[in-house]
Amino acid sequence: MTRSSKGLFITFEGIEGSGKSTQVKLLVKALQKRNLPYLTTREPGGTEIAEAIRSILLNPLYANMTPETELLLYCASRAQHTAELIIPALENGSIVICDRYFDSTYAYQGAARELDENLIDTLTRFATYGRIPDLTFLIDLPVQVGLSRIQSRQLDRLEKEKTAFHERVREQFLFIANKCPSRYVVLNGEQTPEEIHRQLLASLQPFLGEGND
Amino acid sequence: MTRSSKGLFITFEGIEGSGKSTQVKLLVKALQKRNLPYLTTREPGGTEIAEAIRSILLNPLYANMTPETELLLYCASRAQHTAELIIPALENGSIVICDRYFDSTYAYQGAARELDENLIDTLTRFATYGRIPDLTFLIDLPVQVGLSRIQSRQLDRLEKEKTAFHERVREQFLFIANKCPSRYVVLNGEQTPEEIHRQLLASLQPFLGEGND
Repeated sequence: MTRSSKGLFITFEGIEGSGKSTQVKLLVKALQKRNLPYLTTREPGGTEIAEAIRSILLNPLYANMTPETELLLYCASRAQHTAELIIPALENGSIVICDRYFDSTYAYQGAARELDENLIDTLTRFATYGRIPDLTFLIDLPVQVGLSRIQSRQLDRLEKEKTAFHERVREQFLFIANKCPSRYVVLNGEQTPEEIHRQLLASLQPFLGEGND
Repeated sequence: MTRSSKGLFITFEGIEGSGKSTQVKLLVKALQKRNLPYLTTREPGGTEIAEAIRSILLNPLYANMTPETELLLYCASRAQHTAELIIPALENGSIVICDRYFDSTYAYQGAARELDENLIDTLTRFATYGRIPDLTFLIDLPVQVGLSRIQSRQLDRLEKEKTAFHERVREQFLFIANKCPSRYVVLNGEQTPEEIHRQLLASLQPFLGEGND
């Protein structure tokens, strides 16, 4: 896999309720202050075709979807999203901020659904065209804390999984972060959003240059 | 891959306009005459989730779908269809008749879209759970003949491809039939439907036993 030569590709990972969306919003404000070109997007989804795939993936009525189907749909959505949106934006020099990317597949379909990691490697190379994020922020927090935060939401098909499922997801994210320390920044999600944002910006400083927040 | 130990798994392959649907209908009548349990289905599709994927795949508005996305969506649809419908029906002793199956992926996404065959092998094993058809009928005919037959239809995303695309599809089907002679029966699609059906039944005779048509 190759790092993007132009642009900056940032992904956010974490269990449900970890506060990724809040951090994306705070990061966007910081980038706007600096007048930096950026694009925010999310997986599954991000383009018309990928959003159509998302609507199948997260449909709570499709409880009988097999793990194999689920994995292939996530990768299909990623292939379209990467080719149509992420790579062109990076080539234009933008900072691309993506809420979830392939690490989520290793965590949800690999660790939690127990699908073969070698197969996920193959599919990931294929669906990402070999592009990997330059920087991944893992917002880590205990599963119970995350799940209690999303209790008021209408839960989608994956959010409805049992606690043990989400525990395997969390463990896998931490495992990947340990395996890929140069790409990963682990942030403690039990801190205040402002404190998490401060730490996040500090680790982005080498990429962004000067600026006050 | 293993043959289905119970039931009988029959697939139909061929270019657009080859007359697969007509032959499926005639075969169904012959099975009904013999009071044999059968199930007819099609790819992409066959179950609620797989049909939802089909509607993305064939949407004429999605002309910018990448070949990678297309391949992964076909395999996702196949995984769901096979696990939810085909394998259970075979295990119940049914004759399953499927209009298109994995050979179409080798022809359309492999030969015509030029995606890597080894990857398609990997995806096929994964999405079929190792099940292969017991018998595949290839209805072969010149591309121009097939395309002229479907001119009056509203064409879907794949039917709209150029003639050279369909030529590669036809050649690949013939190549696979030559590679897998024990599974494949090639029928000349320029004959009358009745004559094709007669030849088809003759080759099914060892599987079905006696009966007059």
